[in-house]
Amino acid sequence: MQNLVKGVHYFQNIGFQQQQKLFEQLAEGQAPEACFITCSDSRIDPNLITNSAPGSLFIVRNVGNLIPCYGTSNNGEMAAVEYAVTALGVKHIIVCGHTACGAMRAVVEGGTAEKLPAVTNWLRHADSTGAIVKEHYQHLSGAELITAAAQENVLVQLEHLRTAPVIATKVSRGQITLHGWMYKIETGQIFAYDSAVHEFRPVLEVEDGSDDESPRYRSRAIA
Amino acid sequence: MQNLVKGVHYFQNIGFQQQQKLFEQLAEGQAPEACFITCSDSRIDPNLITNSAPGSLFIVRNVGNLIPCYGTSNNGEMAAVEYAVTALGVKHIIVCGHTACGAMRAVVEGGTAEKLPAVTNWLRHADSTGAIVKEHYQHLSGAELITAAAQENVLVQLEHLRTAPVIATKVSRGQITLHGWMYKIETGQIFAYDSAVHEFRPVLEVEDGSDDESPRYRSRAIA
Amino acid sequence: MQNLVKGVHYFQNIGFQQQQKLFEQLAEGQAPEACFITCSDSRIDPNLITNSAPGSLFIVRNVGNLIPCYGTSNNGEMAAVEYAVTALGVKHIIVCGHTACGAMRAVVEGGTAEKLPAVTNWLRHADSTGAIVKEHYQHLSGAELITAAAQENVLVQLEHLRTAPVIATKVSRGQITLHGWMYKIETGQIFAYDSAVHEFRPVLEVEDGSDDESPRYRSRAIA
Amino acid sequence: MQNLVKGVHYFQNIGFQQQQKLFEQLAEGQAPEACFITCSDSRIDPNLITNSAPGSLFIVRNVGNLIPCYGTSNNGEMAAVEYAVTALGVKHIIVCGHTACGAMRAVVEGGTAEKLPAVTNWLRHADSTGAIVKEHYQHLSGAELITAAAQENVLVQLEHLRTAPVIATKVSRGQITLHGWMYKIETGQIFAYDSAVHEFRPVLEVEDGSDDESPRYRSRAIA
Amino acid sequence: MQNLVKGVHYFQNIGFQQQQKLFEQLAEGQAPEACFITCSDSRIDPNLITNSAPGSLFIVRNVGNLIPCYGTSNNGEMAAVEYAVTALGVKHIIVCGHTACGAMRAVVEGGTAEKLPAVTNWLRHADSTGAIVKEHYQHLSGAELITAAAQENVLVQLEHLRTAPVIATKVSRGQITLHGWMYKIETGQIFAYDSAVHEFRPVLEVEDGSDDESPRYRSRAIA
Amino acid sequence: MQNLVKGVHYFQNIGFQQQQKLFEQLAEGQAPEACFITCSDSRIDPNLITNSAPGSLFIVRNVGNLIPCYGTSNNGEMAAVEYAVTALGVKHIIVCGHTACGAMRAVVEGGTAEKLPAVTNWLRHADSTGAIVKEHYQHLSGAELITAAAQENVLVQLEHLRTAPVIATKVSRGQITLHGWMYKIETGQIFAYDSAVHEFRPVLEVEDGSDDESPRYRSRAIA
Ligand SMILES: [Zn+2]
Ligand SMILES: [Zn+2]
Ligand SMILES: [Zn+2]
Ligand SMILES: [Zn+2]
Ligand SMILES: [Zn+2]
Ligand SMILES: [Zn+2]
Repeated sequence: MQNLVKGVHYFQNIGFQQQQKLFEQLAEGQAPEACFITCSDSRIDPNLITNSAPGSLFIVRNVGNLIPCYGTSNNGEMAAVEYAVTALGVKHIIVCGHTACGAMRAVVEGGTAEKLPAVTNWLRHADSTGAIVKEHYQHLSGAELITAAAQENVLVQLEHLRTAPVIATKVSRGQITLHGWMYKIETGQIFAYDSAVHEFRPVLEVEDGSDDESPRYRSRAIA
Repeated sequence: MQNLVKGVHYFQNIGFQQQQKLFEQLAEGQAPEACFITCSDSRIDPNLITNSAPGSLFIVRNVGNLIPCYGTSNNGEMAAVEYAVTALGVKHIIVCGHTACGAMRAVVEGGTAEKLPAVTNWLRHADSTGAIVKEHYQHLSGAELITAAAQENVLVQLEHLRTAPVIATKVSRGQITLHGWMYKIETGQIFAYDSAVHEFRPVLEVEDGSDDESPRYRSRAIA
Repeated sequence: MQNLVKGVHYFQNIGFQQQQKLFEQLAEGQAPEACFITCSDSRIDPNLITNSAPGSLFIVRNVGNLIPCYGTSNNGEMAAVEYAVTALGVKHIIVCGHTACGAMRAVVEGGTAEKLPAVTNWLRHADSTGAIVKEHYQHLSGAELITAAAQENVLVQLEHLRTAPVIATKVSRGQITLHGWMYKIETGQIFAYDSAVHEFRPVLEVEDGSDDESPRYRSRAIA
Repeated sequence: MQNLVKGVHYFQNIGFQQQQKLFEQLAEGQAPEACFITCSDSRIDPNLITNSAPGSLFIVRNVGNLIPCYGTSNNGEMAAVEYAVTALGVKHIIVCGHTACGAMRAVVEGGTAEKLPAVTNWLRHADSTGAIVKEHYQHLSGAELITAAAQENVLVQLEHLRTAPVIATKVSRGQITLHGWMYKIETGQIFAYDSAVHEFRPVLEVEDGSDDESPRYRSRAIA
Repeated sequence: MQNLVKGVHYFQNIGFQQQQKLFEQLAEGQAPEACFITCSDSRIDPNLITNSAPGSLFIVRNVGNLIPCYGTSNNGEMAAVEYAVTALGVKHIIVCGHTACGAMRAVVEGGTAEKLPAVTNWLRHADSTGAIVKEHYQHLSGAELITAAAQENVLVQLEHLRTAPVIATKVSRGQITLHGWMYKIETGQIFAYDSAVHEFRPVLEVEDGSDDESPRYRSRAIA
Repeated sequence: MQNLVKGVHYFQNIGFQQQQKLFEQLAEGQAPEACFITCSDSRIDPNLITNSAPGSLFIVRNVGNLIPCYGTSNNGEMAAVEYAVTALGVKHIIVCGHTACGAMRAVVEGGTAEKLPAVTNWLRHADSTGAIVKEHYQHLSGAELITAAAQENVLVQLEHLRTAPVIATKVSRGQITLHGWMYKIETGQIFAYDSAVHEFRPVLEVEDGSDDESPRYRSRAIA
């Protein structure tokens, strides 16, 4: 705690001044470029890895970067996405998993029910991830297995995201873009899911910055 | 999105190298000092305002830094706290509100049900905040009212936090410390709740770094 | 009720005999070709419109052919799909909407909360449908609007279906196929959603009987 | 899937024409005689076993013909009953179980939690059925036990049905009639519960077509 | 509070001694005759109106003597009944409503949503009561209407009680008896529901002490 | 049941007359001094142990005197407290545990899941109690352990109580007082939690009748 207090002292005396103009501007309101959903893991700093300033990312963080489906009780994730899209006009939502994720280890290994009951319960929102890993990744183990789980989990949570009315409405017409990212802690690399080739590839090759998700269905009625 | 992609490019080529040793070390595991629960608001960068490096803070972020009470469906907030305390051994939990919070504005002003249904539903976890504001802050308005709401909300969410078994167990014996903070966006100042005087005061005056929360009740039985 | 009792009398004396061999065979177990999810509407007879005998279709029927997302309380729809896929080995799931659907009318027109509270609550699983209609179909009205809603609803419910672990696991590897159908009561025509052109087209043109849904993502890890 | 596509082809070209007048009439609206709640089992065709035409039965089908009690989350069964009674004016509700029911086998035998988690969870709405079987049918086994479970389950679900406000209101005054049926797959026979003798008996002997459920309580106040 | 403290003083010095033997006996365990479910209303003292000593009644009290149906979240009422029947062997369950009930007034009059949100929500477990009153008691008003609501509510809650597995199992075989009572505050009279004549009548005429609820259905299978 | 019927007979003929004036007065409305939340245990008679007349205590009773946190589904406990405070103006809420509590035994010993599923589920609202006992009372056993659990449980439930908006609002300003009591069945003694010394002490020493809970936080904003 000592370190944090010292850090606050530093920020209030030095850090803040360095960006004072930005902060005074931000005091009037926020207009973030994207909604960034990632794990609570202390090793991830969204602003650092995207080199973005305060005001750029509307950030949601929980254990395992999960997004409970629409209608599953009263969770904050769907609320955050709704706020980002409807109130702030955000057009990009990034779900970012990472290597060596403790939540994914729990999904893969199980056995946490007694010692971590709330975590175990929460991870049911990653049941699809667990099922996919169980059925398709029996040949992997250790860090590789956890990385595979984290990748599949990003895709699973993107599917969950599509069940939000605000997302379903806009994704179907290409008015919003969903991104699946993976952060590799040990190398600092970021990968993005490329739906054209069904693979995670270096983010700089996948995200060209153009907003091109084509509509998934059109309105022509059957008669 | 262009900016973010450029930022990732910068981080991968320059930012990462600057802290490469730390990241390589972190690849082996995390041991954060504190669990930091704050709002999704893009203007808050927990690592920046505490001047702390990756690995220092286990971070939970949602709209309004809310913590649904124990037993309220399957929310991630209690899971995160459980993971931080039980799996990572974290001894400090900070709930950090902020000025000009959009969630608090919604709590105070209402009227969001139709346009922001998921947000409105989520904010029911701040019903106590809304009730307190309604009964005790009728004399305030505008930014002042929202700041008051954000402060009361920090205290309300700390009460919610106490309902988690893992917290109830340790707080009652002084093995863990809960902190209520407020971040003032326009000045960069951080305030902490001082339970001795029932006020938020500059964090540097309140948090002396000693872990002194005394036990709230002892075990002497009635017979 | 008189008619039904007479009908039972007819079946027990005449109808049953006509297919006695089939029934005796079925007494030993079922092995349906597909899981058919449609509306409770009395005008739809799944076996009739597919000219299929008892034993062919595992049938789920509710108001509006809705499929609550995974994790939304304890609904029977996900249970039925799990049973069909895991216990019965079904490889095709058909979600079949229809024209002139009363549920869709309620979604589009609203105003049912007081007179039909349970229906209104249930239709929240079609909130995405309602949002899509509101945002993209303002130019339609009457029967056309309801048909458009029914079509979009089929696609929304297919997205919900993907959140079931058993489906997520198999769809991602092309081991199961999801079909979106629309039944036009007044003409007896059936249309199927063609994902290649984002349109509902005559079922005979879309469903060639081959099981060709390609995998949506592969397993190549990021490292 | 090939068979179904061929069947649709047949219906569109031949089947539809055979009842074209009926379908054109039905295009204007439905007025079913009864609400028929039965199992998703592919071997049951409600229209076939009651020899009834499209438009006659408002049909609800799920695994085990269960009806979650009023207030248990957001299930479609109560919504369907409400729609049938309030919007369509249906006066008869039939809950129809069947022999050799896979759901009842799961209730009786248990052990499905790991392989069929969603089914297992759903079957908690048949917990009373399981408890009754456990306490009163220890002397039975095999098909007999499953048949007994299916019968008791019909009665349990009828009790659940009574908790719907729309049913409670009308049943207490004899304005609606609830029927408990059992379909014997191997013989095509249908039995109805006869509350006078507490037994399932051939439907033709029990259902005479008269609507005679007397009111269960009157309004004379205690003072 | 002064009065209560004085009352405790009195009990500890005088009241306890008067029944000391009974209390010493009770210290070893309880074996109550019945489970008594009534309203939280301060004017009802179950032990007083049945002239029964400590140890006689296992008592559940909430606003409106409601019993949420089986499966509706995690309520204490079903738990209490289960404990009474299974752990304590209780064979009689009494649901006791009363005249001038504030909860029934809220059910009948509505309009409490804003000022009493939790109460309003809780009273949804009396939705059937509200629906019955609305449909069948339009000719009553004032105290008479509230009394009628309280009577119907007792019957509604008895139906809810039947959905508990432990009750369903035993009621169907006559191993337990459910009683519907009404307490008239102004006269001290107690009435019991007489299912033979569908009326509430003086308890002394209805309850003859014999346990005669005949089984509601027997086990003879359909084949 | 015979005894209860005789008791009713006695009350109607003798008991009622003894307090007839009070009852006639009460018929016009209730104005209880306190809301008393205690266990369903038959050995506790709240009116007896506080020597208070009908009309004095608004009583909530369930297994284990639990108070599910705010937001945990639709429980009656929060509704009762809201009704007591808002509609009846009650200023004192007493949560009263007791020695030899069967619910606490279940919390401490576990193993009730199969035989008492509803009870086990309900007791999750005492998970914090169970966790505290497990971590801090390993040195106790038998009756002592259960008494310790009951004491800690009173404190846990008081924390839950604070999450109700109506309580949070008033407690923070000292407008309502919460009391934690323990009733010792074998001696008739009542103890109250003394927050100044973190101990349960004889109620007559702790509760001096003055309403002195000081506000927990004030309104001075951070700027
Ligand atoms: Zn992680
Ligand atoms: Zn905020
Ligand atoms: Zn329909
Ligand atoms: Zn079946
Ligand atoms: Zn009452
Ligand atoms: Zn107890």
